Amino acid sequence: MAVGPSSTEFKNVGGVRLACAACGIKGDDQLDLVLFEFAEGSVTAGIFTQSAFAAAPVLVGRRHLQMANSRYFLINSGNANAATGDEGVSDAEGCCKALSQRTGARPEEVIPFSTGVIGEKLQVEQITNALPDVAAGLDEGNWLQAATGIMTTDTRPKICSRQFEIEGQTVTITGIAKGAGMIQPNMATMLSYIATDGRANSEFLNAALLASAEQSFNRITVDGDTSTNDSCMLTATGATGIDIDTGNAAITFQAALDSLMQELAHGIVRDAEGATKFVAVEVKGCASEEDCLKIAYSIANSPLIKTALFASDANWGRIVMAIGKAGVPMDISKIDVYVGDVRLMLQGGKDPDYREEAGAAVMKEEEITITVDLNAGDSAETVWTSDLSHDYVSINADYRT
Amino acid sequence: MAVGPSSTEFKNVGGVRLACAACGIKGDDQLDLVLFEFAEGSVTAGIFTQSAFAAAPVLVGRRHLQMANSRYFLINSGNANAATGDEGVSDAEGCCKALSQRTGARPEEVIPFSTGVIGEKLQVEQITNALPDVAAGLDEGNWLQAATGIMTTDTRPKICSRQFEIEGQTVTITGIAKGAGMIQPNMATMLSYIATDGRANSEFLNAALLASAEQSFNRITVDGDTSTNDSCMLTATGATGIDIDTGNAAITFQAALDSLMQELAHGIVRDAEGATKFVAVEVKGCASEEDCLKIAYSIANSPLIKTALFASDANWGRIVMAIGKAGVPMDISKIDVYVGDVRLMLQGGKDPDYREEAGAAVMKEEEITITVDLNAGDSAETVWTSDLSHDYVSINADYRT
Repeated sequence: MAVGPSSTEFKNVGGVRLACAACGIKGDDQLDLVLFEFAEGSVTAGIFTQSAFAAAPVLVGRRHLQMANSRYFLINSGNANAATGDEGVSDAEGCCKALSQRTGARPEEVIPFSTGVIGEKLQVEQITNALPDVAAGLDEGNWLQAATGIMTTDTRPKICSRQFEIEGQTVTITGIAKGAGMIQPNMATMLSYIATDGRANSEFLNAALLASAEQSFNRITVDGDTSTNDSCMLTATGATGIDIDTGNAAITFQAALDSLMQELAHGIVRDAEGATKFVAVEVKGCASEEDCLKIAYSIANSPLIKTALFASDANWGRIVMAIGKAGVPMDISKIDVYVGDVRLMLQGGKDPDYREEAGAAVMKEEEITITVDLNAGDSAETVWTSDLSHDYVSINADYRT
Repeated sequence: MAVGPSSTEFKNVGGVRLACAACGIKGDDQLDLVLFEFAEGSVTAGIFTQSAFAAAPVLVGRRHLQMANSRYFLINSGNANAATGDEGVSDAEGCCKALSQRTGARPEEVIPFSTGVIGEKLQVEQITNALPDVAAGLDEGNWLQAATGIMTTDTRPKICSRQFEIEGQTVTITGIAKGAGMIQPNMATMLSYIATDGRANSEFLNAALLASAEQSFNRITVDGDTSTNDSCMLTATGATGIDIDTGNAAITFQAALDSLMQELAHGIVRDAEGATKFVAVEVKGCASEEDCLKIAYSIANSPLIKTALFASDANWGRIVMAIGKAGVPMDISKIDVYVGDVRLMLQGGKDPDYREEAGAAVMKEEEITITVDLNAGDSAETVWTSDLSHDYVSINADYRT
């Protein structure tokens, strides 16, 4: 069950070909192997998990990205190749080497990615055996298959595109993402691949990716957990020949990237394990962004608030609790709290005009905004989360990560 | 459903009388009002919530405790008198005043406590109307009734005693506690009242209470949430005339208090909302206690680990995830992880000798110890937690805090 509509529409990106296959890791002929091919001269930026237990493909990928421009991404789902020690690193390198032998690219021009069960040896042979078929299937139109092939507990693919005009010419950005649990900044348990046919230098791409991640993937939480494999990649193929890294084009590109990454990030929260609600937590009037985020995450990660959201209960006492424990200095007699447009709390106490029916009506919606205003500064931040349902417990009690 | 056995045995404490009544806040004749009376000359130490939204009785109690030696604790359950603004403070003071008029004690010799729903006006009249009956019922033997009267979502009372000898004379400590959710250091959503018939000065009592709290109430977590009303009180009546604040007596007393408070704290976790497991998370071999605690709480608060515990799944991948995200510098190639006596992870990878059946057998137990050894220092810390079950969601989706 996911919250709200999702679209499967997208635009092809010049210079990007994709392919997808079932190599047998997941079994039952489920898609579990995805290949991206980027035209020569493409430039790639990447963000990886901050976990101390970064998985083998992350260790290899970080190194390869520093050594060369990426020509291929090789992604498997079903096995995370995490906590697999030196053997895991050799396995990830082996997959890169096998693809290199088939395509003529250098091994460091291949970045490996894995998502799925932690602590199991990677099925290298199944992956390498599938490479001929996968490579033969490369096509510009396979984005949706790729979005499906990287899924684990996701119930639907996440894909979207943006287009904008630069001096009369169209530039496209298309991205896919996966992730449904273990979602916590910085970076969620997620993989995301975004490509544009604009042309950009590496420094600009890295800065643009980081800036957009701060307003998207780094502002979502499902359960406060962070994975070993999180990776978010942005590639500019330059196929259009249009520069997007200077002047107005850069501004236009950044805005489009912000919007696209926010849609993908929201897509992850909407499809969060067991989610029945999509919740924005907006905290404003703080002395600093850091204070806003502390309060916002204190609310967004509170199991008591998340169960109240599941129950459609405008339980403002639990919101008070979460604000109070956030560790932010505050004058409680100035604090206002809203769900939707309904004010629950005025100046630190229950709003005398508040009626339960009004709060209950808002909480019954699938999409809810909780707003906290400290009225003590100009900073504001929003994070997005989901509720905590019986299905979250069922999914995570039954699924072997 | 609570985990493991619990005892309702206790010893009376000279100089302490208690009474309990149903004043109507909870309804259905449930006990919801508790009165403690301490003999003149008693000394009390207290620890209160660190929430910025500390409830009205906490604000009043902190002040009263500084102004005078406490003669009475007046505790209601069913309404937390939290986020009630200035009116809440007046209400708490009004209850103290009413009891003062009845008993002849000064108002500041009364400390008020409340637990239950946040943001509702306190039912002052129901409380004050019940005072004559309650006061008439004061008796040394009413500890178990008091332990019942302070309960909210608790399924059973938490009570225990310790006795020790000082120069041939017996000193008693008895304590009660309540709390089942919103449990997070520092301090849980809990109330705890502990009394001894030993004699001690205020400075010693405060230090002793803080020291024991660090190894008990400040080492438990159910859901990472902290309440607005947490309070833990320790009173020495001196009824035995035996000094417990110097020399060997002090050491003996501290050890007994440690043990008693740990049993009460464990009692809270065993009775955590929806708990089916009692879990100790032991982290050792770190460079500092702080590092140990970061890793221990990262594990103990992870919804993914808590659902795996509920499912009796030795999901070591999730443990790896939680260690990795704790924000502690570490050499993963040195890390060993155990459940019970079964080693899951050896030097950062899956233990080659590990078999699923062995892990599964441990995880099926009601009481489980997860041990993480970083093999990189001498510090060690243990925290206690419960699992995350369907019942946790049901209880918190249905109950209005």
